[in-house]
Amino acid sequence: MTRILLLGAGRSASSLIQYLLRHAPQENWQLTIGDVNPAALHTLLAPHQAYARAVAFEIADAALLDALVLVADIVVSMMPALFHPVVAQACVRHGRHLATASYVSPEIRAFDAEARAAGITLLMECGLDPGLDHMSAMQVIEHIRAQGGKLTSFKSYCGGLLAPDSEGDNPWKYKFTWNPRNVVLAGQSTAKYLENGHPRYIPYQHLFGRTEQLQVPGYGAFDGYANRDSLSYRQPYGLDDIPTILRGTLRRPGYCAAWHALVRLGLTDDAVHLANAADMPWQALIASYLPTASTETDIAARCAAYLGLAADGEEMQRLRWLGIFTDQPVGLADATPAQLLELLLTEKWALQPQDHDMIVMQHLFAYELAGQSYWHTSSLVVLGDDAVHTAMAKTVGLPLGMAVRRLARGEVQHRGVVIPTHADLYEPILAELAQDYGIRFVEETGVSAPATVPGRTAVAAS
Amino acid sequence: MTRILLLGAGRSASSLIQYLLRHAPQENWQLTIGDVNPAALHTLLAPHQAYARAVAFEIADAALLDALVLVADIVVSMMPALFHPVVAQACVRHGRHLATASYVSPEIRAFDAEARAAGITLLMECGLDPGLDHMSAMQVIEHIRAQGGKLTSFKSYCGGLLAPDSEGDNPWKYKFTWNPRNVVLAGQSTAKYLENGHPRYIPYQHLFGRTEQLQVPGYGAFDGYANRDSLSYRQPYGLDDIPTILRGTLRRPGYCAAWHALVRLGLTDDAVHLANAADMPWQALIASYLPTASTETDIAARCAAYLGLAADGEEMQRLRWLGIFTDQPVGLADATPAQLLELLLTEKWALQPQDHDMIVMQHLFAYELAGQSYWHTSSLVVLGDDAVHTAMAKTVGLPLGMAVRRLARGEVQHRGVVIPTHADLYEPILAELAQDYGIRFVEETGVSAPATVPGRTAVAAS
Repeated sequence: MTRILLLGAGRSASSLIQYLLRHAPQENWQLTIGDVNPAALHTLLAPHQAYARAVAFEIADAALLDALVLVADIVVSMMPALFHPVVAQACVRHGRHLATASYVSPEIRAFDAEARAAGITLLMECGLDPGLDHMSAMQVIEHIRAQGGKLTSFKSYCGGLLAPDSEGDNPWKYKFTWNPRNVVLAGQSTAKYLENGHPRYIPYQHLFGRTEQLQVPGYGAFDGYANRDSLSYRQPYGLDDIPTILRGTLRRPGYCAAWHALVRLGLTDDAVHLANAADMPWQALIASYLPTASTETDIAARCAAYLGLAADGEEMQRLRWLGIFTDQPVGLADATPAQLLELLLTEKWALQPQDHDMIVMQHLFAYELAGQSYWHTSSLVVLGDDAVHTAMAKTVGLPLGMAVRRLARGEVQHRGVVIPTHADLYEPILAELAQDYGIRFVEETGVSAPATVPGRTAVAAS
Repeated sequence: MTRILLLGAGRSASSLIQYLLRHAPQENWQLTIGDVNPAALHTLLAPHQAYARAVAFEIADAALLDALVLVADIVVSMMPALFHPVVAQACVRHGRHLATASYVSPEIRAFDAEARAAGITLLMECGLDPGLDHMSAMQVIEHIRAQGGKLTSFKSYCGGLLAPDSEGDNPWKYKFTWNPRNVVLAGQSTAKYLENGHPRYIPYQHLFGRTEQLQVPGYGAFDGYANRDSLSYRQPYGLDDIPTILRGTLRRPGYCAAWHALVRLGLTDDAVHLANAADMPWQALIASYLPTASTETDIAARCAAYLGLAADGEEMQRLRWLGIFTDQPVGLADATPAQLLELLLTEKWALQPQDHDMIVMQHLFAYELAGQSYWHTSSLVVLGDDAVHTAMAKTVGLPLGMAVRRLARGEVQHRGVVIPTHADLYEPILAELAQDYGIRFVEETGVSAPATVPGRTAVAAS
């Protein structure tokens, strides 16, 4: 018997819990789920009481954490990443494995030696991004290497989006399927990556104006913008000498150009409190950002002129759709612009019960083999089943559940802090995702002159 | 006898120390100067040993601070503002007055009740800006009020600049006379002010592109950019209902437009570490910020095209003069762009021994009186005497010294946390500055239609 403790049973844990329950009988697992609201799990767990139970748990209760970890073999945490060091500490103390879908933070990294000494695995970055990105990219990278190929370019994009059937008349083709605040504040630092051996920097004020367009088989075009630090992916992927490496985020075409307009207006700033009244109309807020030397009285027209946008162009259509040129009150007093924008978007971009989300991931490789240049793309699209088993919940939870299964079976030999860049982890997980869930990448390869490598950075005028 | 303790004798304290030494004999002061390097003061103090001495002092030595404050009547702090709460705490404990040239921080504000109870004055904001700005503005505001006038607009600008005789061939007409880091990071939040009763916001990425031009009698034109929070000046000045209020910083014409180009490139970002090599040439750093889709190989030409600037225009001339299109190494590995820019500017904008600095301050008022609209400007220019008695040291130190003199004479009745917006403080100080040091404002008044109020915001295209 393997005793599995899952900490945190929020929305994004739904598919993970389903996976653990599905396999518990045949794998001989005893599952304990600790959550602030265990009652919410009773209906779900009722048919599974022989091997699953929910208990009240709060991270602040150190004694309870200690007791729960002590009587577990494997701890799985779906709590916010900032709590993971405390959980990892308990795991190291009691010699229990830990699995999470969160990034290896410096605090977690610091447990490496202790975890090795305790003979345990702190298996991090086993969700979607980070997680499935590592697994799928490493599979291709190792395949190219095994052939004797040499990678010259690696770009990897991922986005949590809206399924085509749920786009409706929303011109952004976007709703919140993830933390709204993170979406509003996305990219607020200079992005850095490598291109043909040269460092490349894009400051925030240009980030959403300098995108690259990608094609995903069966799903059309997407725009990708660069993430904060693409350089940090070289070492874990063994790509220290690669000339081109970039990580980015996907949006539907048009989103980035319109978001760029919001950034240029100043509406994503989270540092300044505006001393505004809660009943300030949105169009008055926008007017406050526009220069006054204008005879034009229509705020939208002034805004378009200020930003150099066509008054009836796509960017302005998207801004209009948000209602920022109406008398709708901003709703919060003395707020930051980012807080006001988040409040507005939370209303406009609310996922409806019947909506489906969509995860899109694409890796773009270029490599040389026997004097010839090749390109290769790996593309994944996952659609949400419903409001519970979203594409996000599935792609975060299923890889994590499968990693836990490997841990429970004793199939993970690596100790200390581990991420799933090892074939003994990613091969069975990718196979299970494809076979049992239809979550599989579409692989495309071709011979190329370097200039036709898909995804060459297209640059919009600033 | 009044025992005065001055903490901190750095560069900016030179004129303050000179003032205190000048008046010590006739005012019967005993002056103790605490500094990390008291030996540096021995030559200066030698002729004054009857009433002045230097002692070794570090703020970390709490017992020494306590002992020094105990045997003082008035404490004057020229240390960095973050140390002031510790000093204020000791002053409150021992019932000693405190005077500084620093802003009232929330920590200092919190001592107000205790200071009142102890019967002492925590006299803050008695330097240049804050300090002389309060004094000179309040004198005019009270004068207008006394006539029965009603203020409709108040704008106030200040700049620490280079005297015309020291500009040489420097097209920025600027060198560092103050903390270089603060100059590089200036304005990195949305500026907010009021215009005709409407809130106005300027995000950082537009701040240096939306300036106002001012004329200062005898010294020509200056460009002013808005400071972070102009709204906070309403309450202390009794201008809660004023429709227009703005605080700003002055630079010579052309500086702001060229700085705006650096901001747009991304070179003032202090959040990202670039993972660069120390020997990276400056022009390679610039190239890393430019889009690659260009056939142009000259970095300066690509930069000009990217920013939409004329290749031989004034902005590009200023950028070229900095050497950012040369092979000069950036000099620091894994630095932030702001750190690299600061390092470069510290070399290019170094004040030479023979250089003189210049302080410029201008207040622009509009008011109504008996149905007529008027404008009024108060302008001050102070030139540095030499590298020790700079305009900055004089305008920070002399008002503070004069405020200490009023405190020592028992002429300050206000207790608790006080700033010099009271006539019993600013009238004698402004009179002494004018009479003994020739530091006086030029006052100009005229009848105006509202549209001709000097200083109407001129807006550059974004």
